[in-house]
Amino acid sequence: MTASNGEGGKPVVGFIGTGVMGQSMAGHLIDAGYSLNVYNRTEAKCEPLVRKGAKLKGGPGEVAADSDIVITIVGFPKDVEQVYLDPGGVIDRAKPGSLLIDMTTSSPELAERVYNAARPKGLGACDAPVTGGDRGAREATLSILVGGTVEDFNRALPLFKIMGKNIVHLGPAGFGQRAKLANQIIIAGTMLGMCEGLAYARKSGIDIQKLFDCLANGAAGSWSLTNYTPRILNGDFNPGFFVKHFVKDMRLASQSAKDAGFSLKGLETALEQYIKLENDGYAESGTQALYKLYCEE
Amino acid sequence: MTASNGEGGKPVVGFIGTGVMGQSMAGHLIDAGYSLNVYNRTEAKCEPLVRKGAKLKGGPGEVAADSDIVITIVGFPKDVEQVYLDPGGVIDRAKPGSLLIDMTTSSPELAERVYNAARPKGLGACDAPVTGGDRGAREATLSILVGGTVEDFNRALPLFKIMGKNIVHLGPAGFGQRAKLANQIIIAGTMLGMCEGLAYARKSGIDIQKLFDCLANGAAGSWSLTNYTPRILNGDFNPGFFVKHFVKDMRLASQSAKDAGFSLKGLETALEQYIKLENDGYAESGTQALYKLYCEE
Repeated sequence: MTASNGEGGKPVVGFIGTGVMGQSMAGHLIDAGYSLNVYNRTEAKCEPLVRKGAKLKGGPGEVAADSDIVITIVGFPKDVEQVYLDPGGVIDRAKPGSLLIDMTTSSPELAERVYNAARPKGLGACDAPVTGGDRGAREATLSILVGGTVEDFNRALPLFKIMGKNIVHLGPAGFGQRAKLANQIIIAGTMLGMCEGLAYARKSGIDIQKLFDCLANGAAGSWSLTNYTPRILNGDFNPGFFVKHFVKDMRLASQSAKDAGFSLKGLETALEQYIKLENDGYAESGTQALYKLYCEE
Repeated sequence: MTASNGEGGKPVVGFIGTGVMGQSMAGHLIDAGYSLNVYNRTEAKCEPLVRKGAKLKGGPGEVAADSDIVITIVGFPKDVEQVYLDPGGVIDRAKPGSLLIDMTTSSPELAERVYNAARPKGLGACDAPVTGGDRGAREATLSILVGGTVEDFNRALPLFKIMGKNIVHLGPAGFGQRAKLANQIIIAGTMLGMCEGLAYARKSGIDIQKLFDCLANGAAGSWSLTNYTPRILNGDFNPGFFVKHFVKDMRLASQSAKDAGFSLKGLETALEQYIKLENDGYAESGTQALYKLYCEE
């Protein structure tokens, strides 16, 4: 390994994207004794980490130039593309031998492009999107779905273990993203069924609390039903998971399925309904707000 | 109560419809000491109960004439209609003071019609569809969703407690059916998301077992995912719950939602996909066969 080492023989970690998720995740790495270089488009979001000892850098390229392992968790695929592939970006400026880990939920095709751009420059690259939300990030219980070579996976594993609990290597570059999109496709149908079923019940005059107590442990049961029904009953449509991010993920899944030559009618329907919800002004609400598309009460 | 009593002071129970579900449920009542009159269109399906001491009757009307409480669990709403409302049927021949309990999954509107036809003749009537499947029937752990008057519910309760575990009174006649349809709407979306997500993963080259191990306890988790993924992995598309019955239930739910003046896009999509599956020759398969609509492997 040509990489210089940080304190205690540990690699220096660059962390790009210190939003709700990234901030918790980067914090765990600092707590575990890693030296961090951090960057975020909105600089203020780096402050809590800087107070914990992280070094603030001026941009993705600068982070890469000064780190051995670069972790990114940003917003949209276009942000991933910019951070990694722009001139002066991460791949341009990373030291040979560095490992690049994108933890954004992004497109499998883009993960392959990043990998293919990194490889000839002597860089490793994994895609490693997560599930478990802000709470999973805070409590370091995330599931981490990894695509990449076995070698890169093993090198990233000590960091993954600090940030998550369920860490699975699913295949070559792009496979982490594919697994994450499969997860989102499953959730899309589940949320659709849940919100429609609860709205139908409410419109029928049924006491949803009673119905929930009766059905939650049966064949209609799901993580979504258990976690969102109480919020819906309380009129709590705060995120959890933002509608706008779910729409992004479903768009990626839809595109990826189409690229593979098949059509997922349930996913398309969920996506249409969530786009309607977004257009109704709920982009910043939690995904349980889909209920309101059917039932305003 | 004008009703004659069976052995041990217990009401005589008529049981119409001794298929997979009814046979187990009626068996529990015999085991609990009730005298049973039984009828099934295919007579052979009554034999195990007759061997346990039930009396075989020649038709629904005859069952009703000789019983204090009549329980039905038949196939389709048209069967319910025939059994209850035909001349010489249950309502025609039931003794005044009898209680009629339909446990078929059927239409809320029909449940109201049965109730309204029963009432002027001095009969009680509940709709009490169940969830929990053949296993729930066998193990007497069914959830029973009840619509009807409080008085009728309380009178039926001792019988419900023998057949099920989770027994909930949700409102007047029709509300049991409405709750059951809400349950099926939730399941419709959940199955759609699950089958599409797993099919997408498989087509992407992902090891579904690995994916399942990683996702089953996360936000994509559901009863369906936990119970059906192992069957799909084993190529086991046997019922469980028949595709043709699920299509029936979703049609009822769709009609009921339309009657109430609103449209459930997710439900409609699931229904369309399951009708396609039926047309592909999978009517007698389990609902997990939806996976095969997307992925033949």
